[in-house]
Amino acid sequence: MSKGLFITVEGPDGSGKSTQIEYIKGYMQANGYESIFTREPGGTPISEKIRAIILDNANKELAPMTEAFLYAASRSQHVSQLIRPALERGRIVVCDRFVDSSIAYQQYARGLGECVSIINEYAISGCIPDLTILLKIDPEISLARLNGPSDRLESENLEFHKAVYRGYEELEKRFPDRIFSVDASLSPEEVRSQIIGRLSDLLGE
Amino acid sequence: MSKGLFITVEGPDGSGKSTQIEYIKGYMQANGYESIFTREPGGTPISEKIRAIILDNANKELAPMTEAFLYAASRSQHVSQLIRPALERGRIVVCDRFVDSSIAYQQYARGLGECVSIINEYAISGCIPDLTILLKIDPEISLARLNGPSDRLESENLEFHKAVYRGYEELEKRFPDRIFSVDASLSPEEVRSQIIGRLSDLLGE
Repeated sequence: MSKGLFITVEGPDGSGKSTQIEYIKGYMQANGYESIFTREPGGTPISEKIRAIILDNANKELAPMTEAFLYAASRSQHVSQLIRPALERGRIVVCDRFVDSSIAYQQYARGLGECVSIINEYAISGCIPDLTILLKIDPEISLARLNGPSDRLESENLEFHKAVYRGYEELEKRFPDRIFSVDASLSPEEVRSQIIGRLSDLLGE
Repeated sequence: MSKGLFITVEGPDGSGKSTQIEYIKGYMQANGYESIFTREPGGTPISEKIRAIILDNANKELAPMTEAFLYAASRSQHVSQLIRPALERGRIVVCDRFVDSSIAYQQYARGLGECVSIINEYAISGCIPDLTILLKIDPEISLARLNGPSDRLESENLEFHKAVYRGYEELEKRFPDRIFSVDASLSPEEVRSQIIGRLSDLLGE
């Protein structure tokens, strides 16, 4: 069994994920927790090479199923090379996006269905987050916050991002114990306060 | 239903696959068949980028499951962007390696098991070869034929290549109608003769 703690942060681009992750980093450092911050797709040299293919705007012909496999490949490498070894050493691992992103984006928004869950079970092989912080925000608001799309995924239309949102809502219903949702339309400080409150409970402070 | 014909060529490196594929190309041209020759991993610009990650000797830490997902990603793109559209246009597609390579190398030799078959069913989504030409050769002979290993897969040891061979033998047993095996220790001309004989039957000449 893993001795560490695995925390993932989920939500659409424009939900303030990066800001909140910086707050979490500050909290971990201030309280002396040995924590590792990583992200998906990416997190290892091989996973970053895969990330480059996924996000490259030049790869317009990328088929939905290919995309799902590339995310799974990147994740499989990330889990086996970084996340699982860190958890086994007792570390707290905080990951910007994880398997729920694949479910929301590929299974629901792309409409690939259950196969996305099945291939991701092989990719994570039991490495399930202890806590997932989900930043929920209406897609119209989160898209307006972005200064124009910066990669292939962000360039999708509003309908796609609404479908992503519905995917996250499905996940919330399926995993109410694991997923902690925060209303990301609140001010960054209010969002921070709710997240740090939940983390303090989890870490027994 | 596809109007074309899908032929794959399988066998370990050093089995003479490239030579035989050149012979098949010559046969198709001489007989006026509209055929497309492609290879895996690769075959489309995106698949070639994935191929580069798989075969790069620098990627020593590539986890077995990551490797299996990358092959599936490359294949999924290849099928959707090139193979299936060509078959729908009535073309003959000849592919150097396909799903059987993943079964032999990842499922059997790497010992990843049934999950490799499952993910590859999603990758090919029903695009099963009409004929698979399997060049069978003892791994000790095929390895001796290679002028030293040239990529990450060829660098594996003899035990690995023996396991690949056993994987191909399992596939032969499971798919006797689809897989046509040729003793690749014979002379290139003899191997060619058997392959062209089988192709002539298939093409009704």
